[in-house]
Amino acid sequence: MDYYKAALELHEQHKGKIEVTAKVPVKTRDDLSAAYTPGVAEPCREIAKDPAAAYTYTAKGNLVAVVTNGTAVLGLGDIGAAAAMPVMEGKAILFKEFGGVDAFPICLDTKDPEQVIEAVRLLAPTFGGVNLEDISSPNCFYIEETLEKELDIPVFHDDQHGTAIVVTAALLGALRVVKKEIGAIRVVVNGPGAAGTAIIKMLLAAGVRDVIACDENGILYKERGVGIVDHKEMLCGITNKSGMRGTLADAVKGADVFIGVSVGGALKPEMARTMARDAIVFAMANPVPEITPEEARAAGVRVMGTGRSDYPNQINNVLAFPGVFKGALSVRARDINSAMKVAAAHAIADLVSDEERNEDYIIPGAFDARVAQAVADAVARAARESGVARL
Amino acid sequence: MDYYKAALELHEQHKGKIEVTAKVPVKTRDDLSAAYTPGVAEPCREIAKDPAAAYTYTAKGNLVAVVTNGTAVLGLGDIGAAAAMPVMEGKAILFKEFGGVDAFPICLDTKDPEQVIEAVRLLAPTFGGVNLEDISSPNCFYIEETLEKELDIPVFHDDQHGTAIVVTAALLGALRVVKKEIGAIRVVVNGPGAAGTAIIKMLLAAGVRDVIACDENGILYKERGVGIVDHKEMLCGITNKSGMRGTLADAVKGADVFIGVSVGGALKPEMARTMARDAIVFAMANPVPEITPEEARAAGVRVMGTGRSDYPNQINNVLAFPGVFKGALSVRARDINSAMKVAAAHAIADLVSDEERNEDYIIPGAFDARVAQAVADAVARAARESGVARL
Repeated sequence: MDYYKAALELHEQHKGKIEVTAKVPVKTRDDLSAAYTPGVAEPCREIAKDPAAAYTYTAKGNLVAVVTNGTAVLGLGDIGAAAAMPVMEGKAILFKEFGGVDAFPICLDTKDPEQVIEAVRLLAPTFGGVNLEDISSPNCFYIEETLEKELDIPVFHDDQHGTAIVVTAALLGALRVVKKEIGAIRVVVNGPGAAGTAIIKMLLAAGVRDVIACDENGILYKERGVGIVDHKEMLCGITNKSGMRGTLADAVKGADVFIGVSVGGALKPEMARTMARDAIVFAMANPVPEITPEEARAAGVRVMGTGRSDYPNQINNVLAFPGVFKGALSVRARDINSAMKVAAAHAIADLVSDEERNEDYIIPGAFDARVAQAVADAVARAARESGVARL
Repeated sequence: MDYYKAALELHEQHKGKIEVTAKVPVKTRDDLSAAYTPGVAEPCREIAKDPAAAYTYTAKGNLVAVVTNGTAVLGLGDIGAAAAMPVMEGKAILFKEFGGVDAFPICLDTKDPEQVIEAVRLLAPTFGGVNLEDISSPNCFYIEETLEKELDIPVFHDDQHGTAIVVTAALLGALRVVKKEIGAIRVVVNGPGAAGTAIIKMLLAAGVRDVIACDENGILYKERGVGIVDHKEMLCGITNKSGMRGTLADAVKGADVFIGVSVGGALKPEMARTMARDAIVFAMANPVPEITPEEARAAGVRVMGTGRSDYPNQINNVLAFPGVFKGALSVRARDINSAMKVAAAHAIADLVSDEERNEDYIIPGAFDARVAQAVADAVARAARESGVARL
């Protein structure tokens, strides 16, 4: 199937992918008087008295803004707000189809992080949550942190945390296959950008003790100097406890897990061959992974996952974000914190039973209908336990 | 029927009134590959090459932002962005049900007009048009003018122009009943706020030559001084050609038409009695009109209209905005100009045939299914003829 041609035809035929429809009837004068004037004044008054009533009388409580400025769209890069719209519409329909969450694209025409923050702050009253999408690093960190602090609704940068959740879920599944303890493994993360950074933080939160981060200059450590700026300085503080130095090849030698969020072909077969026994490789670069499943297998890798749908073990964000928001919204969480993200990863991994689990089936498929509700339940529970739920 | 109670129940039961749904299937892996990754990259690339392709491949071309800052909501006043949401959701479903236009509420948490302008400018890439709603005067004028200049999509403040269109349509119908020429009548407009100002401008564009504007200090004229600031100074330049002075009572004496967008009870029966023969009164204050139909009839008024659905001749914005945007979007109009608004008013008035037309039926009812398409056709034609259409 030619997906590019099919996509153009689909998008042109339907003129995009979302529509905004009425949940209530508007067929009679009485309908109009209850849904609009004069009746509508009453819910307005209730919300003016008590802002929390917005969750009772408006769509806010199930409504997520999918916000981008188009600076890091898919593998296409900085293509701008207008050109990002097809991805944001796609995200919106996945929210609805997989999680029952209403989501709406907000494509912001600016590269200035302060303007993104200001716009989202201003339009927040309409929404119950904010999903940041395809915003380039390092601005994405600053935008997310600032909005998390300023808004009383959850803010979630899916490229970071959605990816981190599904990678962690896949790792939990893979470790059960190879029968290794999470606290005893060494993990190499190649590509410490937005996704890589979030993956590293989440792995540590999930119990991994030894993570080595690598970029195009090799292993990250403070004394390296070259390229150790911004968030990479922070990463030096939480990774590489043993003070390892050298190249990516040095890092993967004897490592139990390689996670690539970098570029196609970054993990050479000869490097994979030097990994520990029962090695796990998640090669997430798209469309060309860091190493192909065929190469990895030939190099002795035991469990292999990619972002692609045409190989086993697709590690796909759609397993996470619909359920994460569904759960967070269901308890009016103020925030989507680390405990909620880890709970989501466990919920995904746990859907694969011990009997079913094997090298080629470590996480549920993208269309597994159980996933979103299981994630939502786990996230809601974790929100309550960690004190960020308001219901 | 208790509309307030019905409204609360309706809003609580459905948790608001809008949802965001998919226009395309997302049931299989192939669906996902065309609607989302990897296929979605192709429409993104097309838009990056040619911004106009957004109209072909995204929902933009049929999507309207319903923007408010909650400073002048219904008769409730400055209740804030969150409390305005029920009205904006109501507007959105009317857009969809009456005009087939997708509309989404954007409730902005600011009273600063510059911030409203900035937010709308930033989020414009998502939308094909902007409907401003319930923004207080005089900021609404400045916001609309600035956005009209800055954006290449139509901007329309419904409280101004929607009201002006339906009032003009009603006037055209009423004049046919009383057999007076539009160029020969004297019209008094009481309440020169956002709606009143737009009505005055539009009446002049539609052919009225003699308009007297009144506020709480009486007839507007430059030398009056008191309260002649901002847009009222402009109004002095385009109204009251004969240099009339005095009170509202002085203005209505001998007038052919009274249009109230002011406060309940403003037109005393004894004033109405002094109007010209075959007088026309549109008393738009809600819920209590400037004069009741019963009082007006007793005072000799021949044609009476209000904003209410429980009297004949309801002058309701829903006759205008869905078709206006439907028409403007259908030809990718850059703007919604005066010619398009006047065309909309004529299209509405013309739907009532000469045979049907009488004192109690001067404009179509809110649920007349012909209205939106007739308005859309007229608006599209006027857009083409006035050079603002891009299709």
